[in-house]
Formats: sequence, structure tokens, C-alpha cells
Amino acid sequence: MNKNYIIPNEWSIIENGFDAENVEASESLFSIGNGSMGQRANFEEDYSGSTFQGSYIGGIYYPDKTRVGWWKNGYPEYFAKVLNAPNWIGIHIAINGTKFDLNTCKISNFKRELNMKEGWLGRSFNAQLKTGEQIEITAKRFVSIDFNETGAIEYHIKALNFSGEITYAPYIDAGIENEDSNYDEFFWEILEIVEGENSGCILSKTLKTEFHVSTAMQIALALNNEEISVGQETKVEAKKLTYIYKINVKEGDIATIYKFGSYVSSLNYKNSALNEASLSNVQNATELGFQELLNTQIRAWANIWKTADIVIEGDVKAQQGIRFNIFQLNQTYLGTDARLNIGPKGFTGEKYGGSTYWDTEAYCIPFYMATKDDKVAKNLLLYRYNQLDKAIENAEKLGFKNGAALYPMVTMNGEECHNEWEITFEEIHRNGAMVYGIYNYVNYTQDFEYIPKNGLEVMIAIARFWHQRANFSEAKNKYVILGVTGPNEYENNINNNFYTNYLAKWCIEYTVDCLNRVKKEYTNDFDRVISKTNLTAQETSEWLKVADNMYFPFDEEKQLFLQQDGFLDKEIIPVNELPKSERPINQKWSWDRILRSCYIKQADVLQCFYFFENKFSTKELENHFDFYEPITVHESSLSPCVHAILAASIDRMPKAYEQYLRTARLDLDDYNHEVHEGCHITSMAGTWMSVVQGFGGMRVWEDGMLSFNPQIPAEWKSYSFTINFRGNIIKVYKSQTECKFFNESRNEVKMMVANNEVLIPSNEFVII
Amino acid sequence: MNKNYIIPNEWSIIENGFDAENVEASESLFSIGNGSMGQRANFEEDYSGSTFQGSYIGGIYYPDKTRVGWWKNGYPEYFAKVLNAPNWIGIHIAINGTKFDLNTCKISNFKRELNMKEGWLGRSFNAQLKTGEQIEITAKRFVSIDFNETGAIEYHIKALNFSGEITYAPYIDAGIENEDSNYDEFFWEILEIVEGENSGCILSKTLKTEFHVSTAMQIALALNNEEISVGQETKVEAKKLTYIYKINVKEGDIATIYKFGSYVSSLNYKNSALNEASLSNVQNATELGFQELLNTQIRAWANIWKTADIVIEGDVKAQQGIRFNIFQLNQTYLGTDARLNIGPKGFTGEKYGGSTYWDTEAYCIPFYMATKDDKVAKNLLLYRYNQLDKAIENAEKLGFKNGAALYPMVTMNGEECHNEWEITFEEIHRNGAMVYGIYNYVNYTQDFEYIPKNGLEVMIAIARFWHQRANFSEAKNKYVILGVTGPNEYENNINNNFYTNYLAKWCIEYTVDCLNRVKKEYTNDFDRVISKTNLTAQETSEWLKVADNMYFPFDEEKQLFLQQDGFLDKEIIPVNELPKSERPINQKWSWDRILRSCYIKQADVLQCFYFFENKFSTKELENHFDFYEPITVHESSLSPCVHAILAASIDRMPKAYEQYLRTARLDLDDYNHEVHEGCHITSMAGTWMSVVQGFGGMRVWEDGMLSFNPQIPAEWKSYSFTINFRGNIIKVYKSQTECKFFNESRNEVKMMVANNEVLIPSNEFVII
Repeated sequence: MNKNYIIPNEWSIIENGFDAENVEASESLFSIGNGSMGQRANFEEDYSGSTFQGSYIGGIYYPDKTRVGWWKNGYPEYFAKVLNAPNWIGIHIAINGTKFDLNTCKISNFKRELNMKEGWLGRSFNAQLKTGEQIEITAKRFVSIDFNETGAIEYHIKALNFSGEITYAPYIDAGIENEDSNYDEFFWEILEIVEGENSGCILSKTLKTEFHVSTAMQIALALNNEEISVGQETKVEAKKLTYIYKINVKEGDIATIYKFGSYVSSLNYKNSALNEASLSNVQNATELGFQELLNTQIRAWANIWKTADIVIEGDVKAQQGIRFNIFQLNQTYLGTDARLNIGPKGFTGEKYGGSTYWDTEAYCIPFYMATKDDKVAKNLLLYRYNQLDKAIENAEKLGFKNGAALYPMVTMNGEECHNEWEITFEEIHRNGAMVYGIYNYVNYTQDFEYIPKNGLEVMIAIARFWHQRANFSEAKNKYVILGVTGPNEYENNINNNFYTNYLAKWCIEYTVDCLNRVKKEYTNDFDRVISKTNLTAQETSEWLKVADNMYFPFDEEKQLFLQQDGFLDKEIIPVNELPKSERPINQKWSWDRILRSCYIKQADVLQCFYFFENKFSTKELENHFDFYEPITVHESSLSPCVHAILAASIDRMPKAYEQYLRTARLDLDDYNHEVHEGCHITSMAGTWMSVVQGFGGMRVWEDGMLSFNPQIPAEWKSYSFTINFRGNIIKVYKSQTECKFFNESRNEVKMMVANNEVLIPSNEFVII
Repeated sequence: MNKNYIIPNEWSIIENGFDAENVEASESLFSIGNGSMGQRANFEEDYSGSTFQGSYIGGIYYPDKTRVGWWKNGYPEYFAKVLNAPNWIGIHIAINGTKFDLNTCKISNFKRELNMKEGWLGRSFNAQLKTGEQIEITAKRFVSIDFNETGAIEYHIKALNFSGEITYAPYIDAGIENEDSNYDEFFWEILEIVEGENSGCILSKTLKTEFHVSTAMQIALALNNEEISVGQETKVEAKKLTYIYKINVKEGDIATIYKFGSYVSSLNYKNSALNEASLSNVQNATELGFQELLNTQIRAWANIWKTADIVIEGDVKAQQGIRFNIFQLNQTYLGTDARLNIGPKGFTGEKYGGSTYWDTEAYCIPFYMATKDDKVAKNLLLYRYNQLDKAIENAEKLGFKNGAALYPMVTMNGEECHNEWEITFEEIHRNGAMVYGIYNYVNYTQDFEYIPKNGLEVMIAIARFWHQRANFSEAKNKYVILGVTGPNEYENNINNNFYTNYLAKWCIEYTVDCLNRVKKEYTNDFDRVISKTNLTAQETSEWLKVADNMYFPFDEEKQLFLQQDGFLDKEIIPVNELPKSERPINQKWSWDRILRSCYIKQADVLQCFYFFENKFSTKELENHFDFYEPITVHESSLSPCVHAILAASIDRMPKAYEQYLRTARLDLDDYNHEVHEGCHITSMAGTWMSVVQGFGGMRVWEDGMLSFNPQIPAEWKSYSFTINFRGNIIKVYKSQTECKFFNESRNEVKMMVANNEVLIPSNEFVII
């Protein structure tokens, strides 16, 4: 059964009462991150129950040797794993010499809170040790948005029924292993342990990739809120540095430890400067003090929420769910570093490895584009631009040439990590999403210049791929694309996947259109790119031959584009006629049965209708929705959002709301019984899209036009969302009776909207 | 490059001169076996160079935990591995206290011989130790055909230039590990070590499967050919039993050790009787003596060759090659035990695991049927009959019901071992081969009674599978079979593989035909089977609906059955236009490129023409051969034989000979650079078929008729082969000018041949 222990609250995730069964799930749900580093909500003190320790640093990875059944040529040799990093939060605690461990105490008044408005994790409870001492703990922790290499902990212990000694032994443990190591190897080497007065650090490096990381801590202590100085004992072990402080307390006293931690890495510093940098970080934090640092955190999150928040009235759980999604997306990626991306588990776990999937372009870019400065989306595009050489190498490994690129299915540094042939080699539609991301960005921002400066090279390499990947079928007298896997991964090695073929044709045509415009408007860039890529007019005309003569499987009688060749040979039985006991089919059916069934994992033909809504009529959309949605099992977290959006756009609000519900509280209610492994970060962007693009009907069209078509589920009183559109903050409010638009100054505006002329109060207000 | 060190010889495999580079290849090539046990040609004495120790016992396996990338529902949890068994051949040797090791001596006159006529392995050489002693070694070893739990070694050392002490320390080492263990585990537990005077044994059991095995040895010694008695020292270690004998020699003396070994297992004895049985075996062998035991071996092999030999005049390498194939097939399987089968590496290595593939029914049965008593082929059929329940379970795991069976792709005990979805779940044509094996057997032997007694139950379960596996396509108004892999494993997850669909239809029709005949002629058996299977007339009529309306992909213009739906969408370029640098494509191309290419790994549509030659016209065969063979890369060892046979049948002798050459010396010349892992046993049956069915044109037709159509490659002077047809020995002789037939008494006969009336001299002699 789903878990149901999270207390509904508009702004916080709350757990009341201690249950050891929920510890690992809560470690995921209450994770904190700042886009650069983050960690699971592990306890600071020792805990002898089941726990999954996880601390992560953005961009630091290890190429773990792949594990396969039968090797296939073209498989990558390594799988880039998100690395579990040294633990900086740990504090061994003893009360009168007895180790304090939640698992062996009597606990009462346990409360855990993840305050999403302010960006901190809190915990408070009373504990009675077996030896009889009663203590009250109040702890708070965050990783700083403004100082993104720094984290801070405030940890109070109140002596409730005794006078005696409280021992705080804060430590850095650099001996952490990955839970998902393929061959149970330890991925780090410890280089140096630096001890000092109240502060210290460990320098370690990753094997093979040789990332150097310095992890520092600095300690301050207080008694009854007064800073105190306590003699420090130091313990240095092979992979661990511990400082021991003994504080004498009287009954009623509160002994407090402040622990500041920092990660710095060779991504940003010379190896020789790392220890100095990390120690300087914790020193600065200590000098600023916990509360002042927290104040900056609260301001930073207020700023994030200003353009990202969605308010739902009349449904607290829905409100909590949507904010949790937005909060986690922001904890995972803030867009300030073009080397980072949106890992599938963010900083909440390490499953799946790699940091970057096509989810970024297909699902995440719209969220970041609409809730942040345009630079953030641009950084996501630059990430791929910077990895173009690797994408070309990747295609070469599969036999492509002449600068054709195949972007990886999963990656950390541009190299392919995934190794199942039907995905790695065949799920090539991801290449189309790279171009769609650019198209989407240019439409939204009107920053066409990105194309001549960067995007065009990516687009050319991808057009080359499609041109080479298609072949001419004598039998069909058309170009075909054989042996692919579409977004619906319940089909493998199919021919002429409609979505893939459509994207291929569109990529070529859009690239040629852009080439023509760049040639006219950006002559210098045009010359540079042509010279760099050796592109000729002859070659582009070869591309267009493929695009112009692309084959699409179509059934005349049903007036239906087919997901792939032969789709109508399958037995078509709607999902709702399947016995419940047979679902989810990915748990109940053998793989071959899934493959030859008609059932669809996530939008495939309909993904095309979502991407290119303007190319199809409403009648076509209805016809395809009515054929494909009833045979879709939505067994990917990325499925419901697209269907919610399409359903809303053809006035099927009950279906849209049903689909919305499937994603909104996926992790909070642990639908799939796997939240202990980490949260589903990328699909959270889909949840946001369900509201903004689905219920709100927001669209940005090829001509740059912005439009809305707000509808509201019958279950809600009202909702509102805010977007940043070309520097203008627009808030959309929709209740059961009203629809209003506000500008940044919270003034209601009547307006709409062509190109950059947004938010100018106007009588041309159009809801399409 | 291919290896080329084996000396051509008509009856022996010979290696002259010692080259450490060839040790592991020779260990495979010079392997010995008797169908029940066998071993690689490891040296008896210590060898510190690269070596792959391998001793195997038929039917003893271990379920090693599978290794996969991403788990798919339906995968088996375990892979049954051929188990590397305790080593009984080992003899530590010391000369004047210095350990003797070929890797550290100066070696001359090294010769190794595998005498295929008599069934033994010999080795002789001179060695000079670093300490100066020169010795001459002559060793001979075999595993007995008649006493199939027993092996024997004769090992002479002549002291060439010294007087002193020769130490023989024969041992049993039960601490052997599998080279291909998935997780480096040791698969055995040692239960008991029994020491005695000159004889002893170790009782061990396999983990999980709990096979108990007793491995015994008994020692006799001689000096200058006179039996001697020498004081025995005993050393017992955790997994090893060693006896130490020190023999004083004078210059010119020959010190000899005879070591007899035995494996007995819980397959044939109670656990409590194993040690007694193994010790009794070695005692009997010792009493019989090495030479007398060898005499029985020579007689046994003469008997095997009587009905199995192929003589080629004018080409010694061809002669050696074909005899090596026949010899290894007989070493692997003799057909006396219905629990055993023909492992892909026989007793020459452990790669691939499992013992049984569809190779048995498609390639091996014809060989064993024609060269041995009918009971042997029947034992192979009974092997599958006995595993029917497991095949039904296997199908249930994939979602089939009502007694439908899917025989495993690879197995040891009936359970599926293989775990790549595209093979395990989809290469279902193997099920058809099970029925074809029965059909082939009944045609050849006219033992129809096998069907009512055993075969029918298998056939019903398989017909049920095909009926459930097909589905009705509204679009085609026919039954289709979606999501399969054909014999050509360079296509995966295809729809309507012609071969698979044809077999499915044929299996149903043949089963219904047999049901009708059994109903009439074997009423009791019919009632028993119907009652056991709950088969109704309604159900068989449902089967026939599928068979009668089966869809076959066909191109009208080319008048061609297509390998699968959409095959003509591929770019068709003949193999001979591919650059040599790109072949073999399975080493040079990525898997996706192979999949979407037109290239065929092994006969697929043409496998159907081979199985059902009588259902197609010569013109149809020519048309299909001319389309498919030129795009076939023959990258399976099972490919060339079928093409050789079909080429011969349409008078394309050069093509037939070209294809024959690709298999005949595959291992001897190590074409694929992998013979060190073991020999390709099952494809050796294909080599035999290339001669007998290909050049010899032997056919047995559905009406029981036997026919020949001998042709001869231009490169040969003559060839002859012998077959056992319903108890009649027929020898076919073909030279460039003559074609003759002889009976068992070597009298030339003119005859031909309907039903059981073979070998009756007659004027109706027909060569079709």
C-alpha cells in the first residue's frame, strides 16, 4: 500500500512521531540541496537502524565498470555513477558517556519538518536513554543557496532530568561507499587529513576520474545560548577526522553545537587550493553565524518562490504536492553552472546513475525557462553544446561518420552510460529532443542569437545523424528509419516509429530554415560554422531529400498515424478491460508479452502531438487521443503530464485531473514503493507542466506569441501560478468563476500578447 | 591469423614441438571424453605456464546466479553451469627433489597425439631440468568407453643421464573452480577424504544442486616394466589427497606410474554407496591393467567407426578434419543415457553453460540417427519428453496456460538458463525443432510408436503454445506471430518470421495428423493422452483455425517469402560488396547497425527449405537461395552446413564446397581464435551433414523412402560414408568417375529403396 504518514501542510513536509519503518523513505523526502550539493535527510547522530547514507556533490562522478549479460558491440565500458561523497553532517553524541542512538531510545514528540518556504530541515523530539537520562533535541540544517559550497547545522540538547556530561564528537567521514556500486568497490582515495582548532578538512580524490574534493568542518559551541570554548580532543583515522568536546551541563541546560560544512572540488579550484578554500568557507560561515546564514537562505528561497510558486486553494494535499515538486526541482538545479544538469534522483539518492536524460530537454526546460531567468535554460542548452564532441564520438562508435552526433541516453560528461542495446543504440528520438529544446527556448525567449552562436552546430550534427540513420526503401519508395525504440519503451527495435520519423524530418527542416536565416542575418557566424563543419549546399539538399520523402505509417480507414509499422496487427484491448491483478504490467507480465501487446508506457505518438500541437487539427488530436490514451498504462512517471495537458486542450477536464493526480504526490505518497531510493526529480517538472500548460493552457507559439486558456478542476477552489516571460512576471489566477492576470506589482492587467509586448495593459486581451 | 600447427594425418591429431602459446588451444583440441566424463588435455605434471584446467562429468551442473544489466520479468534466476570437477589426472613429479615443470625445462622432441582411431591421448618428449637431469617422458591416457566411469594413465620417465630419485606424487584435487563463475564462487563442498593403500577417494557435493561425486584414484608402479612396490607417504589437505612415492633409478632406467581414476555420482548411486563404487572401479581397472583396458578401448572405437566413418581420398587435411568432427561428437555423446545431451563445448570447456540447445534436434539428431542404433536418437527425444513438465512451467512463467510448453533455449535440467530477452523469450522457433526432431526420427526409423507412447504429449503441448502465441490481426485478416527472433539472431523482436510462422502451422498440422492416426491405431494410448491433457476436439479445431489462416510475408514481384514483415525496407547489398575490413560484422559493427542491416547470421528462410525440401519446388529453392545466400554472413558455426546441403541439391558444387570448408576445420585451424575456450561440438554434426546430406545427397522422405544423389567436389579423389539405416549398414562410395553402394559384408549392391526394404539387391536402383 502507499505510505500515508506525511502531514498535509501548505508550506512544509511534516512527519509526526517516530517510526523506524519510515526512516529511509523520510531520508529521501526530507532531502536538502542547493543545486551544487545536497544530501539525504540522514540523522546527524549515530543511528543503528536501517538507513541509506547519501551525500552528493554536483558534477562529481565515477565510471563504474558496466554489468551486462551478453556484451554487444557499441556498449560503453563504464557507467558514470553519481558518487556518494564524504559525510560532513555526522556528530557522535554521548550523554554521560552513553552513546546516543535513536534506535535504542524511548522517543516522544518526534517531529520532522522540511520547510519549503525557507529551505531548511528541522527535527525535534524528546528521548530517554536506557540509562535513564532524558533529553530534548532540536536540530536544524540547510545547505546554503547563496554560499553554495556550504552547509550548516544547529543542534541543541536540553538536559531534562540530569546534570552531567554531554559529548559532541563531530566528524568528517570520507569512507562512504556507493549503495549501487556494480562490484562493491570503494571509489575514493584519501589524500590528506588536516586537523586544526575547531576546524579541519579531508582531501580525497575519486579513482579514475581524479576529481579532488576537500571536505571541511568548523565547530562552534554554546551553553544556554552563550558561546563557550571547550577543550578539543582530536581523533584521526584512515578515512575520518573527529573532534571530541565534553560539555558539563546542569539539569535544564541547553548545550548547542553549530557545525558548518563545506565541499569544494577541482571543478572550481586548483587541487592545491582546495583545502584552503574549504576551510575558508567554513570559517566565513562560522563568523557569519548560523542565524545570519539562515536569514540569507530565507531570502534566497523567497526569491525563488516569487517566480515559481503555484497556489492551490481548497486542497491542502494538492498544494503541498505541487510545492514539493517545485521545491525539489530547485534544490536539484538552479541553473548557475552549465556543467551541471538535472539528475533523475537529484541529491536524494544515487539510483540510475548519470545526471542527464532527454527528460531535461523534453520536460525540465519548460519549467526552468518559465520560473527563472532565461540564462538558466540557456545553461541547459550550453551543457549539450559543450558535449557535442562526445556526442559525435558516441555516434562514431555506432558507425556514423562526417560529424553526425548521437546524444547519450544517460550521461554525466557527454559519454554514453547506458547499456541495454534496445535503449542505448535504438532510443534515438532523444536526439530530436535536443533540437526541440533549442526551438522551445528560442520561441520562449526570442533569443534567436543562441542558434548562430551555439545551437546551429548541434543542429547540423543531429541533422547529419538523421540523414545517415534513415535509409531508402525500394519497397515503399520512401525513406524509412528502421530498428528504433520510441518514447514508449514497451516496444523495442521497431520500424518507422511515427514520433521518431516525425522528429527526424522536423529536425532537418528546422535546421535548414535556421541555416537560411543565419546565412542572411549572421554572416560571420554562418561562415564560421560552415567552415568548422564543412557543410555544403549539396549535403543539405541530401538531407532535404530524406525529410521530403520521409515515410509515416498511417491507417487510411482510421485516419490514424500508427505508432510504428504493423501496429494494427496487435490485439487492441483497452487498459480498463485488463484485470487489476495484471497491473502494472511491468511487474506482472513477462517482457515478451509486454512487447507484443498494444500497451503503451508513456506518450509516443501523443508526445508528437504535445510537441507540435500547432501542426495538427483539434480533430486529429481528438482522434489520436481517443485511440492511444485508452491503451496507455502510464507506467512511466513522465506519462501522465503529457496526457493531462492534451486532455485539457480538448476539454476533457476529468481525464486531465485524473492524470494530474497520478504525478502530483507520486513521491510523497510513495505510489511505487521506492521512494526510499530517492525522489523522481525530472517528472516533477511534468507535474508543474500539468498545471501551467494543462489547466492553465499556457502556450508559446512559433511566432513568439504567448497565450493562456485557463480551466480549473471541479475539486479546487482556485489556483494561481506565476511565470517569468521575457523578464515580465505574470501571475495567472483562476477560480471556479473568475480568471485574472496580474503583473509583478500585483496589479491586475488585461492584456494579451504578441512577441515581446507582454503585460502592457490592453483591450486586446485574448483567451484562445 | 588462424593457427596452423596441427600436423595433417588421416587418423590422428598431432602436434610436433612445444610452444607455450599453443598450450591452451591444444588442451581443447586434444580433449578426451567417453560421453559420460571427459577432460581437457591438461598435463598430468605441474605446469606453471598459462593453462585452463578442465574436468567434467556429464549431467553434473551448478545453478550460478545470473548476471544481467537490467532485469526483465521472466528471466531465469539461475544459469546452469557445466561444473569443473575434481582433478583426477594430476601427478606432481620431482627429479632428485627438483619439481618437474615443462615451463621451466628445456624441451625437445615434443610430440602430442590424439589417436582418433583408438581413442587415446599420447605425449612424448625429452626434457632437461635446470639442475641438469635429462629425462624422456612417454605418457598415454584415455577415458574408457566400455567402463565409462573410469580413466587410465600410463606415465614413463626414463633417466637419461643420471642415477638418483624420481618422485611421483599422484593426487586428487577437489578444489577446482569454474573459469566462468559469474561471481567467483567455489561450487563444491568437500565431504570426506578416504585414504588407503595405493588407492583413495574424495567425496564432494555441489552446492545448491547437491550432486554427490566420489573421485577415486589407484596407483601401480613399475621399474623397467616390472611391477614394483614402493613405500607410500600420504598427504591430506582440505580439498586434496596426495600419495608420494620415491623410486630410486639408475641411468637408463624407466620408472612408470599407472594411475587409474574414476568419477561416480549420485545420478547413478545412492550417496552412501559412492565411495565404495569409485574405489571398486579403480581396483577393477588396476587388476585388468592398463594395456588390457586400452585393448577394450581400441575395440570400442573400432565399433564406433564401423558405422560412423567418412573416408576422403586425395585430401589429408579434409580427412583429418571430418574424422575430428565425428570423433568429438562421439566423445561428447554416445546416447546410452537419456539424461544426457550434447553440450555446446562437450567435455572440452565450459563456456555457454547448459548442455542442450535446439542444435540437438536440428543438427545432431540426423548424425546420431544415421551413425548409431535407433535407440540413441530415441534417447535424445526422451530427454525432451522427460523435461516436458519443466517446459510447461517455463511457458507459464511467460504467461501461457493450459499446458502450453516452451522448451528452453539452453538448459541442463529442463529449466531455462538463458537470459537475454530477445533470445530467451523470443527465439521460440526452437519449439518447432522439438517436433521436427520427432518427425525426422519417425521418418528415419519408421518407429511411429514413439508418438503414441511419448511424442504426442510433447506435440500437444507445443501446438497449444503456437495456438496461444499467435494472435488474429484485424488488419491482415490472418493469424500473425509478433515479437520473435528467428534462427538469424541478427534480427530481434521481428514480426511474422517466415520460418517461425511456417513451423507453427506445420507443428499444428502434423500434431493433428498424428492425433488422428493414434486415435485409429493406438486407442489405449489415445485415451490415456487425451485424458492426461484434457484435449478436446473443440481445442484442436481452434488450433487448426490458426494453422489454416497463418500469415506468411510474401513479395509478389520477387515471388519471395520474406524473412519477416518489412524485410524489403532494408538496403540490400550483397556480402561480397562489403569491405573485408568490416567483417565479421559481429566484431566490427555495433549491434544496432547489424540489426537494421540485411545481413543474415545463419539460415533462416533457408532453414525452412532445408527442413521441408519436399514442400517447395527446385525453382522456388533456387529463387530463395539466390536472394538470401548472398546476404548471409555465416557468422554462426551452424550456418555453412545448411547452405552446403542446399547448394549441392541445386547443383552448385563450388558453393557447396566453399561452405563445407568453412566448418570442416573450424577448430583445428582455429578460425575464430577461440578454440582455447573449447571446441564447437554441435556444429560438428553439421559438417557431417554437409558430406552425407550435401555431397552424398542422402534424404529420408516422409513416406520412409531413402535416397541418395552423390556428387563429389572437384578437389577430392573420392569419398565414402557409412550409415546405419533401420539396422542395415550401407556404405556409399563416390569417386570422380564412379558411385557404388555396399552392404555390411562389403559386397557391392545395386539397390533402391522404399520403406523398410533397403539393401536388397535389386534392379530398381535409383539415383534421383
